[in-house]
Amino acid sequence: MLGTAVFAITGVLAVTRRGLDVFGALVLGIVTALGGGTVRDLIIGTPPFWIGDSNYVWAAIAGALAAFWIGALLRNAYPGLLYLDALGAALFAVIAANKVLTLQLSGPVAVMMGVLTGIGGGLIRDVLAGRPTLLMSREIYATPILLGCIVFVLIRTYAPVFPYAAAVAVTIIFGLRALAIHRHLEMPAWLTVWDTTAK
Amino acid sequence: MLGTAVFAITGVLAVTRRGLDVFGALVLGIVTALGGGTVRDLIIGTPPFWIGDSNYVWAAIAGALAAFWIGALLRNAYPGLLYLDALGAALFAVIAANKVLTLQLSGPVAVMMGVLTGIGGGLIRDVLAGRPTLLMSREIYATPILLGCIVFVLIRTYAPVFPYAAAVAVTIIFGLRALAIHRHLEMPAWLTVWDTTAK
Amino acid sequence: MLGTAVFAITGVLAVTRRGLDVFGALVLGIVTALGGGTVRDLIIGTPPFWIGDSNYVWAAIAGALAAFWIGALLRNAYPGLLYLDALGAALFAVIAANKVLTLQLSGPVAVMMGVLTGIGGGLIRDVLAGRPTLLMSREIYATPILLGCIVFVLIRTYAPVFPYAAAVAVTIIFGLRALAIHRHLEMPAWLTVWDTTAK
Repeated sequence: MLGTAVFAITGVLAVTRRGLDVFGALVLGIVTALGGGTVRDLIIGTPPFWIGDSNYVWAAIAGALAAFWIGALLRNAYPGLLYLDALGAALFAVIAANKVLTLQLSGPVAVMMGVLTGIGGGLIRDVLAGRPTLLMSREIYATPILLGCIVFVLIRTYAPVFPYAAAVAVTIIFGLRALAIHRHLEMPAWLTVWDTTAK
Repeated sequence: MLGTAVFAITGVLAVTRRGLDVFGALVLGIVTALGGGTVRDLIIGTPPFWIGDSNYVWAAIAGALAAFWIGALLRNAYPGLLYLDALGAALFAVIAANKVLTLQLSGPVAVMMGVLTGIGGGLIRDVLAGRPTLLMSREIYATPILLGCIVFVLIRTYAPVFPYAAAVAVTIIFGLRALAIHRHLEMPAWLTVWDTTAK
Repeated sequence: MLGTAVFAITGVLAVTRRGLDVFGALVLGIVTALGGGTVRDLIIGTPPFWIGDSNYVWAAIAGALAAFWIGALLRNAYPGLLYLDALGAALFAVIAANKVLTLQLSGPVAVMMGVLTGIGGGLIRDVLAGRPTLLMSREIYATPILLGCIVFVLIRTYAPVFPYAAAVAVTIIFGLRALAIHRHLEMPAWLTVWDTTAK
């Protein structure tokens, strides 16, 4: 629940630099907080997680309004919120991957759904707000989630008795992401195509 | 059905200023007319409303083609179409909120689905057409829908015997939107963040 | 399966001109290859086609990574890949239209789902990558798919004993698209609105 509110806050703060009204802030905050999980649930065929429990919706609304009204205050806490956001993304992604494995779906699908839950809301927000998505930036946001979900699924598949798979995966995701935030790391050039000769 | 055709017409007219071919007009018109309701139906777990009744599809196609072929004529009627569009959005939103309440889902979900039905199609159209979405403009389009849906759900929840909940909500939505169109109102500044100091 | 990999390859190659990292390439390749069919399956209410058969996912991953790592080599084969892409789109669209008819849904829905399967993945990719979608260009990509699906549905509806409906439709789609690639055809002006007087 706290993670949902934090997603909404960071979601709105990322966009208010561009300027928007209170309705837009509400929609973008809700979309960032609930969007990834909603698409995941539609794909795996379960009702969206917030349909039966309005508290998720209220958390997203509270986060979005807080970011809108006291955004100036929260902006000072933005670096701290980024770490909370990273922890939330790690937890959500691993919970999602676990949910998919529980449904007896395959490992690759579990990894995909974990990543989708972690970054889907942010992607939809960026598209609606007309910003470049994180796919087109060199910020290290999604790659730790991908690695963590792969490790989680590998452990759960090949060493199902190992009890700390989730803890290991969350540590990997949060650790790498925190390192990237702290050191302002970007993707290394050999993992990036910058075709400067293209028009 | 008429509302669906009007949505398709205004959807295409809003975009033809940028120039597109007849296929693009068809897709954008259909998406504007059916998109919001489709996403709503997927989320609440019912088949899309147009799957079992092709008349909705034909209405959207007719509206899109009309806007494409006789767009110059229709453009003269554009102010009038805006009022029809506002009425259609009001009806669609309230019908959607009512549908969600009938499914025993919670009030916040009903409000969200009402708003989604009213603006979802336009959002998807703007994204596909590469235009800034209404979330990033100060045009008053979605806020009346939000207020009307909140009033509708409050009445239905706390005064279920009151028989005119839908009429009140539609009046609120259409009245506010018509006022905004007529007076060219924009969101007041205190409800808007325009962070001009941001880069 | 080969078609899925080709979709992923052409999907990534179309975007690498802009520069992206390996994670972005993976996501965009998978989205291009699986996106259209996934939205179609959600709308018609069946589980996404790749949920039960990971081979589709692996084909998309392989295609995306190939396009990323040996993109320079593949770019020389790009014209050839465009023809493969056209053949894949034709097959996917007709298979999708057939699937919808088999579910006893109506003809217009079958045509819409065929077109959606053929172009949906590319639309989502362009939106995520911040590129103008094909709806806003005069490239002839979607119109052959629309015509082929209409012919297919007409034959299946009014001449159900004719055994070669699929072959005729695939030939129409691939033939028109190949012609457009070969001759660099664009949509004729009378099918296009270029409202140069608009601001």
